[in-house]
Amino acid sequence: MGQKVSRRYDPPDSPRSVGWVTPQQVQLANASNPLSLCCGAALDYVVVEYEQYGHMNADRSNVVLITHALSGDAHAAGWDATTAHTGRTWRDRKPGWWDAVIGPGKPIDTDHWCVICSNVLGGCYGTTGPASINPTTGLAWGMRFPVVTVEDWVQLQARLMDHLQVQRLHAVIGGSLGGQQALEWALAFPERVGRIACLAASPRLSTQGVAFNAVGRHAIMRDPHFNNGDYYTGPGPQDGLASARMLAHITYLSDQGLENKFGRRRRDQQAPGFGFDIEFEVESYLDYQGRSFVERFDANSYCYITRAMDYYDAAQRWGDGDLVTACKRLQSKVLVVGFSSDWLYTPEDCREFAVAMCRAGKLVSYADIESPYGHDAFLVEEAPVGRLLRSFLHAQQGSMP
Amino acid sequence: MGQKVSRRYDPPDSPRSVGWVTPQQVQLANASNPLSLCCGAALDYVVVEYEQYGHMNADRSNVVLITHALSGDAHAAGWDATTAHTGRTWRDRKPGWWDAVIGPGKPIDTDHWCVICSNVLGGCYGTTGPASINPTTGLAWGMRFPVVTVEDWVQLQARLMDHLQVQRLHAVIGGSLGGQQALEWALAFPERVGRIACLAASPRLSTQGVAFNAVGRHAIMRDPHFNNGDYYTGPGPQDGLASARMLAHITYLSDQGLENKFGRRRRDQQAPGFGFDIEFEVESYLDYQGRSFVERFDANSYCYITRAMDYYDAAQRWGDGDLVTACKRLQSKVLVVGFSSDWLYTPEDCREFAVAMCRAGKLVSYADIESPYGHDAFLVEEAPVGRLLRSFLHAQQGSMP
Repeated sequence: MGQKVSRRYDPPDSPRSVGWVTPQQVQLANASNPLSLCCGAALDYVVVEYEQYGHMNADRSNVVLITHALSGDAHAAGWDATTAHTGRTWRDRKPGWWDAVIGPGKPIDTDHWCVICSNVLGGCYGTTGPASINPTTGLAWGMRFPVVTVEDWVQLQARLMDHLQVQRLHAVIGGSLGGQQALEWALAFPERVGRIACLAASPRLSTQGVAFNAVGRHAIMRDPHFNNGDYYTGPGPQDGLASARMLAHITYLSDQGLENKFGRRRRDQQAPGFGFDIEFEVESYLDYQGRSFVERFDANSYCYITRAMDYYDAAQRWGDGDLVTACKRLQSKVLVVGFSSDWLYTPEDCREFAVAMCRAGKLVSYADIESPYGHDAFLVEEAPVGRLLRSFLHAQQGSMP
Repeated sequence: MGQKVSRRYDPPDSPRSVGWVTPQQVQLANASNPLSLCCGAALDYVVVEYEQYGHMNADRSNVVLITHALSGDAHAAGWDATTAHTGRTWRDRKPGWWDAVIGPGKPIDTDHWCVICSNVLGGCYGTTGPASINPTTGLAWGMRFPVVTVEDWVQLQARLMDHLQVQRLHAVIGGSLGGQQALEWALAFPERVGRIACLAASPRLSTQGVAFNAVGRHAIMRDPHFNNGDYYTGPGPQDGLASARMLAHITYLSDQGLENKFGRRRRDQQAPGFGFDIEFEVESYLDYQGRSFVERFDANSYCYITRAMDYYDAAQRWGDGDLVTACKRLQSKVLVVGFSSDWLYTPEDCREFAVAMCRAGKLVSYADIESPYGHDAFLVEEAPVGRLLRSFLHAQQGSMP
């Protein structure tokens, strides 16, 4: 999500890197096998972009699915071979978004596990979404794309697993919205997933989270360049998307984290500038986050994905409003990790989630990680997260890490 | 700030109401007596709007100044006589913003105290601001208005007190940005103020608060109708201002307060609407807050006042960065009140402020009020706030409430 923490990246030729990766695209729905969505619509053309790191073993029992968060993509580890050295895209500059924990010898060890990550439906990184061409009209979908849900994403991921002839996943692991996908996997396909790890995620977004999403979409959809989502031939709602990202970014950090990192320091001077230009370092940081996001993300996808985030409610979906009832479906081992300063998916919410699973009589581990990095901690706190994931993946069936 | 809590208002003919009030306007700067500002500019024409409730005693020693927060105005109590029954303005619909605590027999008892409240410089409620005509050019100031600060506001309020021949204020009382003005009064004019009450306020805004202000201004200033602040003949940046207000409004409430009030309830139905229209009640609430704010507030003023909020730093201004040093100037009794769920000016920050005053050897009371209403609690929690203020105003000099 972008907490700017100095990181040493493993270069593509490092023995700890999965190296150069070529994203794959596969068509997973067609006219005779359309993808039915929660909203009632069906898509008869869906392409999914995914990446794979490591090799499947003979019985395809070593597959770990990684599910990405709001602004993530299928490129979770290694270096993108298709954009390398082109100098054209932001992907050139760094490896996949979870490269710190995925690779040979790393916590999600690609010498042992075959790791797969796919871009969500409605996204803008290779999987069909609002920026894709609707084959029926020959035009970009825009806001005519059907509203998608976390449940739809998981259905499509299950199709991808069918395509790859993976009957049962060793594990599904994700943070934030990715953690909700992991949970949905275990609820929708209890017999197809051995274990799930949900980091910085709870079974539904808080009211405050829904509120922040509403403001972000307001900024996008009221931008005059939004044009009801039909902006692909024009500049697009760049200012609105930047506002939305700036706002969201604050929610990924923490009060204390911002204080530690920027305080009230000014960029160029100590004295007030008495104007409205960017002056405080925190303003400069947010401005950068907004501008760089506009380069790499589609505003329509932002609206669709945040709506999926609003809608997901595991208790409603599987327990008629009762989370313990929903959790009774689970057959997977579960690891839930909360982060002390996360105020988007709070540790209290994560804990409540774990408690519900206990009440349902399920195997669950809960870990609280002390961190000043807010919601971003699930990405930033590589060492403790890595230790938990490594042991969770290897733990014997029936015992807990 | 707008937490929608059902309140019974005292009608204008109630013995507990200050009744109909006519705002006063007074010119407090002219060419021979310009107002010098922190930014280096000087204004040679400044009009201030203020209201007065209750009567000054013979030696003018019973005056209590109320300082307002971001979106407040001089109309703190009673019913506006100039807009009554015109059906034209939002002011018709309800009494002043702090009517619950100001009036005959109320905590800030107008039978005893003469209460004054003035609109801040740069505001949009009668005091000179960006929407005012610059007499030199004959045009609205717009963003050519000089950047104003909390210190400038207090200087101008001191001029108002000079005009009213009030040498020494019994008390200055304010919440949020108003609390910072109260503090600045006690620092800038130690001998002119007997006591200050700072509610939900600390000596400077947090980094996170600066960040939220930056996003709000971004939304306003990138709205194509903003036109560098010269929008007074057009529609103005309504969408940007609405976005800014929606966002700010979230920061005035609390996670738990939002959960309690709205949860994940939908407006018209239980099932998802699978679209981007307003669906969750919290979305509807924020939309209303955004739209109604646009009717009553000037976007330029919003930028100026949030900038003043960013800039204020009592420790920097009066203690070369050290708050205890700054507090040594104080000669007033001080009451600081923090609210448990306030995350804009947190109770921890309020407490730290009180501790600094203790360290400086000053008389200070600190109260923590348990409340789910977030930052808005200083307005909503009328009963405990009222009790504290009543006793604080009457406490003997030298003793504490």
